[in-house]
Amino acid sequence: MTITRRHLGPRMAQSVVHGDTIYLAGQVATDTAGGVAGQTESILGRIDQLLAECGSDKSKLLSATIYLTDIATFGEMNGVWEKWVDGKNVPARTTVEAKLAAPQYLVEITVIAAR
Amino acid sequence: MTITRRHLGPRMAQSVVHGDTIYLAGQVATDTAGGVAGQTESILGRIDQLLAECGSDKSKLLSATIYLTDIATFGEMNGVWEKWVDGKNVPARTTVEAKLAAPQYLVEITVIAAR
Amino acid sequence: MTITRRHLGPRMAQSVVHGDTIYLAGQVATDTAGGVAGQTESILGRIDQLLAECGSDKSKLLSATIYLTDIATFGEMNGVWEKWVDGKNVPARTTVEAKLAAPQYLVEITVIAAR
Repeated sequence: MTITRRHLGPRMAQSVVHGDTIYLAGQVATDTAGGVAGQTESILGRIDQLLAECGSDKSKLLSATIYLTDIATFGEMNGVWEKWVDGKNVPARTTVEAKLAAPQYLVEITVIAAR
Repeated sequence: MTITRRHLGPRMAQSVVHGDTIYLAGQVATDTAGGVAGQTESILGRIDQLLAECGSDKSKLLSATIYLTDIATFGEMNGVWEKWVDGKNVPARTTVEAKLAAPQYLVEITVIAAR
Repeated sequence: MTITRRHLGPRMAQSVVHGDTIYLAGQVATDTAGGVAGQTESILGRIDQLLAECGSDKSKLLSATIYLTDIATFGEMNGVWEKWVDGKNVPARTTVEAKLAAPQYLVEITVIAAR
């Protein structure tokens, strides 16, 4: 099976496609000003872009792992998440609390999707 | 490859089958009264059910990620885990400490399995 | 698709190959004396060995999840990581802070790779 990598940096690729499975890097907000809701919107928009480049979209999400720096923001993140997901094609999901690479990041989301 | 989703809620599906690979949502205990051992039993029983619905079982586990709210309960969780797993077909596994979505949850387990 | 498991213990296998996809267990350092940099080197050497046994290598990494017990060591871990990865074939990656199974472990890395 072929492997296609996009947006390569020295540490990681933002997307890796292996056969019919797409692995995205953990996404954080490019604009961190908006709190948890704003950061989640920023991340989900970026996931849309990355999946589109791989010939996929959010209706083909398989799994999502969501890291929140404060689990008390679970509801705020969910409000944005539930508006974004394709309700007939929601992924398996896990959400836990974890400190992230830089203190301004309040949310990070890692997804696996089908092509 | 086809995608089959089961137990859809507004945020997630409890299982997503993509080709020959099954992704389960992070499972927490339905009965949280039993401490770490009891919660782990509850979770593993639920994983058995979810895998069976997908035409699989624990002998086909590929990977497991276990989150404990207190890593000091590692041994207690392992006691239940080791009795449950198929000893000839154990999965790759990662265990870390993380706060979970609600304070009554002491363990969460996310697995990937083969069909 | 066939499943091949290696290094089976009572809790987990160190590698599980399912079709063309390889799941490794979360790797921690066998020698924990060297701080974050030394532990990361130890882990990455072990990942090389485990992938080789599966007929693969680091150029076929698909995704990596890195857990640091202190996210302040992010830069130190990255220094070792960036020297190790195949720059033209970097994986999707997620890094978060989490306490690990024993206090001497400062880093744990879980990867998925292609065969």
